[in-house]
Amino acid sequence: MDKIITISRQYGSGGREIGQKIAERYGIPFYDNELITRAAKESGFAEESFERAEDKATNSLLYSLAMGINVYGNQDFGFSGLSLDDRIFLAQSDVIRKVAEEGPCVIVGRCADYVLKEREDTINIFVRASMSFRLHRAIHDYHIEEKKAADYILKNDKRRGNYYSYHVGEKWTNLNNYDLVIRSDIKGIDQAVDCICTYLGD
Amino acid sequence: MDKIITISRQYGSGGREIGQKIAERYGIPFYDNELITRAAKESGFAEESFERAEDKATNSLLYSLAMGINVYGNQDFGFSGLSLDDRIFLAQSDVIRKVAEEGPCVIVGRCADYVLKEREDTINIFVRASMSFRLHRAIHDYHIEEKKAADYILKNDKRRGNYYSYHVGEKWTNLNNYDLVIRSDIKGIDQAVDCICTYLGD
Repeated sequence: MDKIITISRQYGSGGREIGQKIAERYGIPFYDNELITRAAKESGFAEESFERAEDKATNSLLYSLAMGINVYGNQDFGFSGLSLDDRIFLAQSDVIRKVAEEGPCVIVGRCADYVLKEREDTINIFVRASMSFRLHRAIHDYHIEEKKAADYILKNDKRRGNYYSYHVGEKWTNLNNYDLVIRSDIKGIDQAVDCICTYLGD
Repeated sequence: MDKIITISRQYGSGGREIGQKIAERYGIPFYDNELITRAAKESGFAEESFERAEDKATNSLLYSLAMGINVYGNQDFGFSGLSLDDRIFLAQSDVIRKVAEEGPCVIVGRCADYVLKEREDTINIFVRASMSFRLHRAIHDYHIEEKKAADYILKNDKRRGNYYSYHVGEKWTNLNNYDLVIRSDIKGIDQAVDCICTYLGD
């Protein structure tokens, strides 16, 4: 298996876990928070800013308006005129391109499919699941309060969708952005991993 | 394998062939033109009207306007006030529900995912592919003239998308409508069949 695998995922769908299992099966690196940490260290930004970046976009209009009141970089930094969020996105994108250069790996989130779109060796996967499956995971695995869980899930998806459309300029839910879209709840996480590995081959 | 499998597909993606191979592997019925023929016979409409139905919708506004000048059913038929196209869709939907009642099968096109959405035993698949793969198939397998092939493919996709959004009220390319979306050109038709069968299980 000689591919760079990117995974986009609905909140609570198990996309991150699926990504980890694929990475383990092929013995290749897995990036999500690791990636953020590495980006933060290399660019000198505070790690906390990076961790919040994907959750920040509320919708592209509000986001664009908000850019005006963000802290701007100085001329020396080379990103003059860009918001802090945009600079974080660019720094993350640099890291994504670097780890992809190093060889096959799994990268979760952060519009990696878009960042690496010029590479022909990427496989872009989207993981989705039913609301009941995601509710169960949110409550039991992520310890989200039961009565707030549905709202929390929908808000997270909205943020991820807005983050994607802001940076990529396309709808997050457009199937043309992905090579494989899989619903993880019908036969479970492990069956989804098997299916993806059958698709990827040896 | 105890599922009803519906397949939506971009023109030239090999979705029909994939559907046939899945049906063969599980030894279950496969429906597309067969389905149309059966619908036509049961409802008494001319077969030709059915064959053109999916290709007729150009966009929902034009389509709706066109409904006004269509031949209307009489009171006895029970579809009074519906256009011929809508009556054809209803007759097809009846057939889809009937064949699904008979047991596991593969149904290609005709918004079968939507028609069967109340059934919990359906798996909805969308097959897509790169333009170059589809061009090759259009020219070599379907004998479309080379210089007209790209336009032909795009027009067919547009018609299928409009047909879906007209009848279902949702975007054809919204990944939330499907359990599995697969790009058939990366590893080929047979690998796609293997992947889908891994997903479906025994």
